[in-house]
Amino acid sequence: MKHTVEFQPDNITVTVEEGENLLSVAAAAGVYIHAYCGGDGVCGKCRIKVDQGEVYADRASLKQEEWDQGLRLACQAAVKSDLKITVPEKLSDGRKALKRKPKTTRTIAARSLEALTGTWDIDPPVTKLFLELKPPTIEDNISDMQRVMRGFKQARPGESDPSYDHPELIRELPAVLRESDWRVTLLLLHGRGENEPVRIIDVEPGDTTARLYGLAVDIGTTTCSGVLIDLNTGKVIAEASGYNAQIRYGEDVISRIIYAGRAGGLRALQDRVISTINGIIEDICRSVIISPADISYIMAAGNTVMSHLLLGLDPKYIREAPYVPSVSLFPLTKAAGLGIHAHPSVRLFLYPCISSYVGGDIVSGVHACQMAKSEKITLFIDIGTNGEIVVGNRDWMVCTACSAGPAFEGGGIKYGMRASHGAIENFHIHPETYDPMIITIGRIKPSGICGSGLISIVSELLEAKVIDQQGKFNRSLDHPRIREGADGWEYVLAWGQDSLLGEDIVITEVDLDNLLRAKGAMYAGYQTILSSVGLGFNDLDRVILAGNFGAFIDLERAICIGLLPDIDRDRFYYLGNASMLGCQISLTDVKRFRERVQVRQLITNMELSENPEFMTFYMASLFLPHTDMSLFPSVQGKLERE
Amino acid sequence: MKHTVEFQPDNITVTVEEGENLLSVAAAAGVYIHAYCGGDGVCGKCRIKVDQGEVYADRASLKQEEWDQGLRLACQAAVKSDLKITVPEKLSDGRKALKRKPKTTRTIAARSLEALTGTWDIDPPVTKLFLELKPPTIEDNISDMQRVMRGFKQARPGESDPSYDHPELIRELPAVLRESDWRVTLLLLHGRGENEPVRIIDVEPGDTTARLYGLAVDIGTTTCSGVLIDLNTGKVIAEASGYNAQIRYGEDVISRIIYAGRAGGLRALQDRVISTINGIIEDICRSVIISPADISYIMAAGNTVMSHLLLGLDPKYIREAPYVPSVSLFPLTKAAGLGIHAHPSVRLFLYPCISSYVGGDIVSGVHACQMAKSEKITLFIDIGTNGEIVVGNRDWMVCTACSAGPAFEGGGIKYGMRASHGAIENFHIHPETYDPMIITIGRIKPSGICGSGLISIVSELLEAKVIDQQGKFNRSLDHPRIREGADGWEYVLAWGQDSLLGEDIVITEVDLDNLLRAKGAMYAGYQTILSSVGLGFNDLDRVILAGNFGAFIDLERAICIGLLPDIDRDRFYYLGNASMLGCQISLTDVKRFRERVQVRQLITNMELSENPEFMTFYMASLFLPHTDMSLFPSVQGKLERE
Repeated sequence: MKHTVEFQPDNITVTVEEGENLLSVAAAAGVYIHAYCGGDGVCGKCRIKVDQGEVYADRASLKQEEWDQGLRLACQAAVKSDLKITVPEKLSDGRKALKRKPKTTRTIAARSLEALTGTWDIDPPVTKLFLELKPPTIEDNISDMQRVMRGFKQARPGESDPSYDHPELIRELPAVLRESDWRVTLLLLHGRGENEPVRIIDVEPGDTTARLYGLAVDIGTTTCSGVLIDLNTGKVIAEASGYNAQIRYGEDVISRIIYAGRAGGLRALQDRVISTINGIIEDICRSVIISPADISYIMAAGNTVMSHLLLGLDPKYIREAPYVPSVSLFPLTKAAGLGIHAHPSVRLFLYPCISSYVGGDIVSGVHACQMAKSEKITLFIDIGTNGEIVVGNRDWMVCTACSAGPAFEGGGIKYGMRASHGAIENFHIHPETYDPMIITIGRIKPSGICGSGLISIVSELLEAKVIDQQGKFNRSLDHPRIREGADGWEYVLAWGQDSLLGEDIVITEVDLDNLLRAKGAMYAGYQTILSSVGLGFNDLDRVILAGNFGAFIDLERAICIGLLPDIDRDRFYYLGNASMLGCQISLTDVKRFRERVQVRQLITNMELSENPEFMTFYMASLFLPHTDMSLFPSVQGKLERE
Repeated sequence: MKHTVEFQPDNITVTVEEGENLLSVAAAAGVYIHAYCGGDGVCGKCRIKVDQGEVYADRASLKQEEWDQGLRLACQAAVKSDLKITVPEKLSDGRKALKRKPKTTRTIAARSLEALTGTWDIDPPVTKLFLELKPPTIEDNISDMQRVMRGFKQARPGESDPSYDHPELIRELPAVLRESDWRVTLLLLHGRGENEPVRIIDVEPGDTTARLYGLAVDIGTTTCSGVLIDLNTGKVIAEASGYNAQIRYGEDVISRIIYAGRAGGLRALQDRVISTINGIIEDICRSVIISPADISYIMAAGNTVMSHLLLGLDPKYIREAPYVPSVSLFPLTKAAGLGIHAHPSVRLFLYPCISSYVGGDIVSGVHACQMAKSEKITLFIDIGTNGEIVVGNRDWMVCTACSAGPAFEGGGIKYGMRASHGAIENFHIHPETYDPMIITIGRIKPSGICGSGLISIVSELLEAKVIDQQGKFNRSLDHPRIREGADGWEYVLAWGQDSLLGEDIVITEVDLDNLLRAKGAMYAGYQTILSSVGLGFNDLDRVILAGNFGAFIDLERAICIGLLPDIDRDRFYYLGNASMLGCQISLTDVKRFRERVQVRQLITNMELSENPEFMTFYMASLFLPHTDMSLFPSVQGKLERE
């Protein structure tokens, strides 16, 4: 149920879901409230007054008289009805300052692309067919397999002869047929191409048509996720995820490649990712009480290195110039053959890769959003250590990857961390007092900064002129939070007492440098790839942000620091885990599945690693937002307003 | 080089090859010469006089004066030039009798079907393609596999994209490409159907196109044979064979099926036949000094039980009514996966079966002789323990199998043996003295009777009226060789001193009974299957004898005892090991290979086991040659002549 929340004295009204946390609502609305402890309820700074309506709240550290006056801690209060809220004058003494903040600093997420993924049918690439066969007689004693084939043809007249698995299927067939009294269910694998015949991959006793499940798997370098779909209804019925157990051998793909080169390394890495997938299957099957043997198809996507490791292929040449993968179009594999806990006949489809650094996860994502079917020129972005960029439409596509470094995933940032509990995910700074408003994931005391937090912090520091466009702190500001630390100048996001670590959490100039390089690489990537096809940012009809990160990015702030191009905000969309989405769509609708071929065939790869134009663009991007401010007119206005 | 040999006083002249043994020439020409020891040179009875021309000969047991008179032992003499031979009067005192023997009693083999198998091209279903690939650069860094595919497409423009083996091939590919400096040879498997794309099954370093071999394997219940073909020339370059090592578990398919039902039995049987094939591969590879890994395709054929056992499929239901095999169309299998010593990617093709008792050996044979392409109505026969019969032409075919019993393979015959050294393979009886002329395989002292010998013996005994048409000995003949033995009446083929066993070798009435049943089942089979399609023997344009046995059958004698129908002798053809021939043709010419599908699709199976008409025909066949003598006009004439 939706409610309106009106904040005074800023006079900002937003509509939110019942139960939303008021501190988060304020942060998203651009309403500054002091908040030091990330939302943990301990610093007691985020007092607000409920003038009208009701909130779900505990008294927490408030005194009874404060409670009776209608004061609440924003971080401990959730929306229960339409509300009128006052942020008390003594705290909100930056009323003037707040007013100066343009409303556009509100957290604006890109729009979901749901409408553009289109709908899909329940017409999965694996189906079941129940047959009641006539038992053999002396006049009709064709082989068991021929009898099954004849049953198939009678049930599906006009279809071409199916092929069938061997030898597992045939070995068991005589017993299955006789024990089930000739009533069996065929598990049919439909061709990946339209003209390929159906393949019988299992014959099960009795009528098992009600049990038909598919598993979509996203194999990330860090995290692997699985989604179980009931292929009779198309509904997601279970999900699970876990860290990729390869992590012990290195955080990123390069360290995994290096480890694969050691004796036994490749095998160890393959075993790890397979045990990770098995763990996911186990969790999922336990949660909905099905057997892993009831999973009838597995569709997976991962980057090129993850795909190679899953199949036990040496990724060695991916790392060495000229960066050549062993294979880009992965053959359909028997999952059980890889060691995955699945029915022996069940196939694992792995989305094809384009190049060493544009993998199946990107192909799956591009496939999911139907770029290859639209005339609109689209920029598809997956921001990460390796940022992948695809641009094009149904007529042509170019892709590339740029090494942005791990800043957005917490790497190279002093207090950087992954987007997990305790990570600062949203940040506002009071434009006059320079005090922070910190929101953490899980609303506990902060323990570090994740990617979206980093973007918030840098853009807020920039707009407040705590840092300049080169990412250097304003040495002239005299404020306890702005200081010279062990690693040079820094801003204290949380004092030790308000942090989970018990020590001050800061952002340093070294961190800012790393962020500059990361966002600079991405932006230079967009420029290079667009330039290669003679286009500019204004030619883009759409920008699609893939990856979970994309869903959490505050557009204005990402544009403000130069991570995203400064174009009409309405052109931005986010897809969430696009890679997983592609797998889910393919699992559910074989027609959509078959369209993946167009995607792969359309995309041309471009290498940036030795591209001189890229280097030029990159150098010009090492500025907030950019040395060429004409590329960022809206940011220019914002920064000049002061 | 050919020479003429004139036998006097019979005045019979034949044309033979230089080096042929004179005793064999005489036997084949229907010239009776006393010969008790099978051709071993020890009985000294087969004296002949060389009147003109030269023979290769040793003096052996002849006295110098006999030698000087031009006497020679026929069994120790070989044709060197045109010859005039006199069979000395004192030995050939049956001059009158011999004259009475019609010339048609000469051994007449059926004609070879060579002309009818047609020619075939050297266009094998597996080929090699040498590629010199451009090494990758940063501008051209597609995956290794894509590079191979591109190389293929450049070499074979217009062909559809090949598929490729996984994961063996891809795993090794990066190393193979780089170590061979991007010069590699693709091993290509062509589709079994015309529309199937080519499949890359191996990538070998360097140019290996000169090494391309295929192995044809005939998997017999008793004997397995292999033929190695150089697929670049189409030439057979090596052959080997050996007993099927399953023999220790039983002589015939039924005992093998029973053994397969024991714990571990199926596995043991599979292991045995595979070790037999491995032994053949080893022998062949050693003889021509190639590696088993250079064999690029294996085409095999065997009866339904042998095929099941090779693939590890339980043949249980083959034996039980209604006699259902697990599968009749065997999927292409990786030979190495079965344990065969072959390159890991090499496929084993197994000819499809029709029914439980009409197997891939028959389909291969029918395929070899192109019955399915001819308008001529053909009766295809494979005589053995399980006699298989196919009748039809390019428009229709019906097949059946009848359980003839093992008589033709030496089973159920007191001195029966397989067609190996020492087996009596040819026999004549002196129509007045009842003395035998015995020729053994290898021309050593006799140790038993093989199938072709049995046919000779029975037909000669019948014509000489030593036995009657019911297979009973003429009790009124007073002759030391015709006597009552332990098993009833018998004829002594060889006295102990002339036999390898040191004991008398005889043929008994029990043996004759077994032969009657065996030939009766075959003949009743022909009648039943012809009757089912409304045809009679006179409608047959051709009779094809498959199996090695067929090549050794003396047509006149086989007709005389009622094993073959009494029709124009010119309509008979023999194919030798037709099953092997089909495999050889398929290995060499993919177009012919693909035609096998028509064969299988045309043939309809018919079961005789509970067929009342078959039983009626069978009862009427238990007579020499048949109770209905109008079916055997030529035999009737012969038997009445006396």
